[in-house]
Amino acid sequence: MLLKRWLIGRPLTTAQAGHQRLANPVALAVFSSDPLSSVAYATEEILLVLVLAGTAALHYSIGISIVIVGLVAILTASYRQTIYAYPSGGGAYVVAKSNLGEAPGLVAAAALLIDYVLTVAVSVAAGIAAITSAVPELHDHRVALGLLAIAVLTLGNLRGVRESGRIFAVPTYMFVGSLGLVILVGLGRVLFGVPLEPPLPSVPAVEGLTLFLLLRAFSSGCTALTGIEVISNGVPAFRDPVSKNAATTMIWMAAILGSLFLGLTLLAHFYGLVPSEEETLISQIARTSLGGGVLYYFMQLATMLILILAANTSYNGFPRLASLLARDSFLPHQMRNFGDRLAFSNGILLLGAFAALLLIVFRGDTHALIPLYAVGVFLSFTLSQAGMVEHWRDRKGRGWRKKLVINLTGAVATGVATVVLAMTKFTHGAWVVIILIPILILMFRKIRWHYRIAAWQLSLDMYERPPAPPRNTVVMPISGVNRVVIIALDYARQMGQDIRAVYVDVDPEETTRMKKDWERWGAGVPLVILPSPYRSFLEPFLAYLEEVRKQKPGEWLTVVLPEVLPARWWENLLHNQRPLLIKAALLFKPRVIVTDVPYHLGLY
Amino acid sequence: MLLKRWLIGRPLTTAQAGHQRLANPVALAVFSSDPLSSVAYATEEILLVLVLAGTAALHYSIGISIVIVGLVAILTASYRQTIYAYPSGGGAYVVAKSNLGEAPGLVAAAALLIDYVLTVAVSVAAGIAAITSAVPELHDHRVALGLLAIAVLTLGNLRGVRESGRIFAVPTYMFVGSLGLVILVGLGRVLFGVPLEPPLPSVPAVEGLTLFLLLRAFSSGCTALTGIEVISNGVPAFRDPVSKNAATTMIWMAAILGSLFLGLTLLAHFYGLVPSEEETLISQIARTSLGGGVLYYFMQLATMLILILAANTSYNGFPRLASLLARDSFLPHQMRNFGDRLAFSNGILLLGAFAALLLIVFRGDTHALIPLYAVGVFLSFTLSQAGMVEHWRDRKGRGWRKKLVINLTGAVATGVATVVLAMTKFTHGAWVVIILIPILILMFRKIRWHYRIAAWQLSLDMYERPPAPPRNTVVMPISGVNRVVIIALDYARQMGQDIRAVYVDVDPEETTRMKKDWERWGAGVPLVILPSPYRSFLEPFLAYLEEVRKQKPGEWLTVVLPEVLPARWWENLLHNQRPLLIKAALLFKPRVIVTDVPYHLGLY
Repeated sequence: MLLKRWLIGRPLTTAQAGHQRLANPVALAVFSSDPLSSVAYATEEILLVLVLAGTAALHYSIGISIVIVGLVAILTASYRQTIYAYPSGGGAYVVAKSNLGEAPGLVAAAALLIDYVLTVAVSVAAGIAAITSAVPELHDHRVALGLLAIAVLTLGNLRGVRESGRIFAVPTYMFVGSLGLVILVGLGRVLFGVPLEPPLPSVPAVEGLTLFLLLRAFSSGCTALTGIEVISNGVPAFRDPVSKNAATTMIWMAAILGSLFLGLTLLAHFYGLVPSEEETLISQIARTSLGGGVLYYFMQLATMLILILAANTSYNGFPRLASLLARDSFLPHQMRNFGDRLAFSNGILLLGAFAALLLIVFRGDTHALIPLYAVGVFLSFTLSQAGMVEHWRDRKGRGWRKKLVINLTGAVATGVATVVLAMTKFTHGAWVVIILIPILILMFRKIRWHYRIAAWQLSLDMYERPPAPPRNTVVMPISGVNRVVIIALDYARQMGQDIRAVYVDVDPEETTRMKKDWERWGAGVPLVILPSPYRSFLEPFLAYLEEVRKQKPGEWLTVVLPEVLPARWWENLLHNQRPLLIKAALLFKPRVIVTDVPYHLGLY
Repeated sequence: MLLKRWLIGRPLTTAQAGHQRLANPVALAVFSSDPLSSVAYATEEILLVLVLAGTAALHYSIGISIVIVGLVAILTASYRQTIYAYPSGGGAYVVAKSNLGEAPGLVAAAALLIDYVLTVAVSVAAGIAAITSAVPELHDHRVALGLLAIAVLTLGNLRGVRESGRIFAVPTYMFVGSLGLVILVGLGRVLFGVPLEPPLPSVPAVEGLTLFLLLRAFSSGCTALTGIEVISNGVPAFRDPVSKNAATTMIWMAAILGSLFLGLTLLAHFYGLVPSEEETLISQIARTSLGGGVLYYFMQLATMLILILAANTSYNGFPRLASLLARDSFLPHQMRNFGDRLAFSNGILLLGAFAALLLIVFRGDTHALIPLYAVGVFLSFTLSQAGMVEHWRDRKGRGWRKKLVINLTGAVATGVATVVLAMTKFTHGAWVVIILIPILILMFRKIRWHYRIAAWQLSLDMYERPPAPPRNTVVMPISGVNRVVIIALDYARQMGQDIRAVYVDVDPEETTRMKKDWERWGAGVPLVILPSPYRSFLEPFLAYLEEVRKQKPGEWLTVVLPEVLPARWWENLLHNQRPLLIKAALLFKPRVIVTDVPYHLGLY
């Protein structure tokens, strides 16, 4: 308990929960870490595909980036409307379910759950790559470093969200500031003709420059959009008026995101950079732009920190979504409980475990994880926007036609992107997500089905309550007379009614002694002696219980087990084999209650 | 249960147990498999050491074997006296403990437990080597084959010892017969000058021929004596007069053992054979003597079978010794219980597990296991013989001086051998055994110490029994009203006295509904509502229990937990998190009894 307190912190009261509101600059930092951090890898992912068609194809990255920035604009306009329509938080699950129905809602929920896990895995992997780019000696330890990061995030989030705001503002601004500097200095050098490093040797083409390849490059770049919806989920965390503040912050975020992404793509183009195995593209750009000095290392640190914060966003989102699903009985009910400190502990632990698993399976490699990533994100974008379209058709309201068109544009744009993503990335890993989504939906429905059936079986509607509580027969197996036995006997005696001690006769001599002892200590409780031709204890005892149960149908049968509880764990190996066997044998017998009466041995 | 019956067979009654007596020829086969089977590897182990000093040193094997056969004679004479003195079975533990005291008894017991495990591992490894010598393709699968053999032995012994006698006679006689034939034919060919295969190329020396090397070779050969004591442990299994029959059988066994061992050593010498990695020496001898025909394969099969039977001997000895130790409280008391079918299931399972572990660690290699083997065996020989010396000094009786001298000779001879073994094999693995023995003794004493303290704490001598059973307060935590809750409530109601339902208020609306439901279903049981500012369920509930406990010192507090038991295992993930938490929190509270009232959900 003390350890838990120290690791997780003091719990918050319900009253305190309401006051965790964030000012816009802090909220921008908290909610932007996820979308902004994706510029750390998006340009690189585009170039990684284009380079297959040789160095000459790399300039297509500019066009692709412009299309993606266009998508950013469309989605920002689209999500600002969600912010106003759902001031209590409009996640894709809520919006899709309430407007499109349960099935689309569950598709969005499944896609989101997968994406939360991938956000953690991808961001941590990319964050570690920022470090190993600056310190190549750590390259071989990237899985271990990633697991460490996930462990820290998981524990930190079990402590709760309170501190988050304060701490989180710093790295986001560090990243935006230093990356802005890199881009300004870099573009300045290009404009004013400061001589650049000699360009890298050109790479030969291994594939033709097909439309499919360009679409694949576009799909890879779409990772820049991941996390753009975060603000619309977190509206209640803003200060009043929540929707206005959130919408303003959304614009800021989109503007920063667009500038950084486009700036990086341009610089990579002007510098003629090509992705490498050992160093991230953003690290190459920063090194070329700033030289290898202190500023460069600061920039890498900031990149790592914002990526870890991006991972942290999922630690808020995943348990929140899980608790919404649990409230609808699509996930186990215990996930609906707020844990101590307002964090949903079950969800946090699950998220950490799955992300760690992904990191291990994909050996901490960002590029290998990326193809799994964006499909689910865009699927939930599409469902969320489509839900908004239905929302306007349904509710109408002032200027609804214009709003509908904006969301429709968003839905169509992201819908097309989803199809492109699924097709171009299918064989690279997207198939995993496409298979997982229906499996998760099946699981959701199976769980709700169970809860429904259980509720029906537990319902009191048709229950015929007996007029008086049923009678209870108490049976206590004993193998001798000592303190545990006598204490358990006295416990059983106060339960009143029909009590019997049962002794299994395996040795006539001992049985005679037992009978004598019982005369002294039995307090008038009858002692039943069971013969045991096979010297087995369990079988005659169980047969006896069966007999009692048959004689008294509809009544309770309580088995009182005297149990020695030793003070040290290993001493348990020396006791209690028999109670364990009895409990295992009786677990599935209806109307049989097993009661342990423990006796705690002292330390010596 | 049915599966257990099918795998393990029907239990035997106490009455049946007495009739498992064996006729001498059958008893010879049953008890000789362990000692006789060791000739399958003893000669090879001698040569493996001698060959380090080159081919020229191999002829020392004859001298060494003659010394070992001398030891066989001394030990046979010595153990025949044990057979008469302990007709109920004179194992080293019993003899050493009753004559020399507890500490030597425990040393013998520790040595014996280790040796039982090693007998299984060594015999199975050598048995598999017999097969892989004949079928070299199986060489790479020897660990898997060994584990299979151990699994079969373990299951077979859980079925019980009854069938043993019948089945076991066959392979022992197969082995003795075919090995006798090999030796007779082989020696015949040597005597009558039938041309032999061309001798193998001579091996150069890598070590000098020192006294230490000769002693090491002797130590390796001492494995031929392992198991020689088995008959003296099993006297009660013979027909009346038990001691006379056992003593006669002992002579037969020793004569066969000596002839086979000496014959093999001579043949290896005459044939100029050298141990090889792929084929056992005994297989080389049989192949040279008989040619590669059917008889050779029969011989290999017989070797394998007798070695597996030798391993089986431990399955009788280990659980029997464990039960003796458990009766003296040196091992967990549950090991003292006879399982079904008179076999001691716990011991059998432990033995199988440890032997399998050894086989895996040493990769099924007989030579690697041998150095661990004989030290413990000879240590227990020495203690047993020394115990007999004390026995005669103490009891005297007719001709006791002569008897004392015989046992003294045995004790001195095996004592010297033990020291030689420990010294020459120390670095090759004997150190493991020499470290393990004191650890086991510490464990024995620690266990008995626990049982003594527990018995003292549980004793009724100083117990002041309350004049009437203490009163009981029944507390039932509820989170709503349904069938489980009402059934558990009605169970709690018949426990009489002071009953309270406890509800934790996390949502005022739900609490109001709860109160209304309780008016209808509560049957007059008071409903306690606990506030929970942190929305936690567990902490207010535990605090309430603490309060009740303080108000009613010395009384019982029973917590009745309504518990849903689903019909499928995975459905447990959807229920009962709360009862689990409550139980974990209450496990160590004295005078608190937790009672689950289960409600079984049906299948659907």
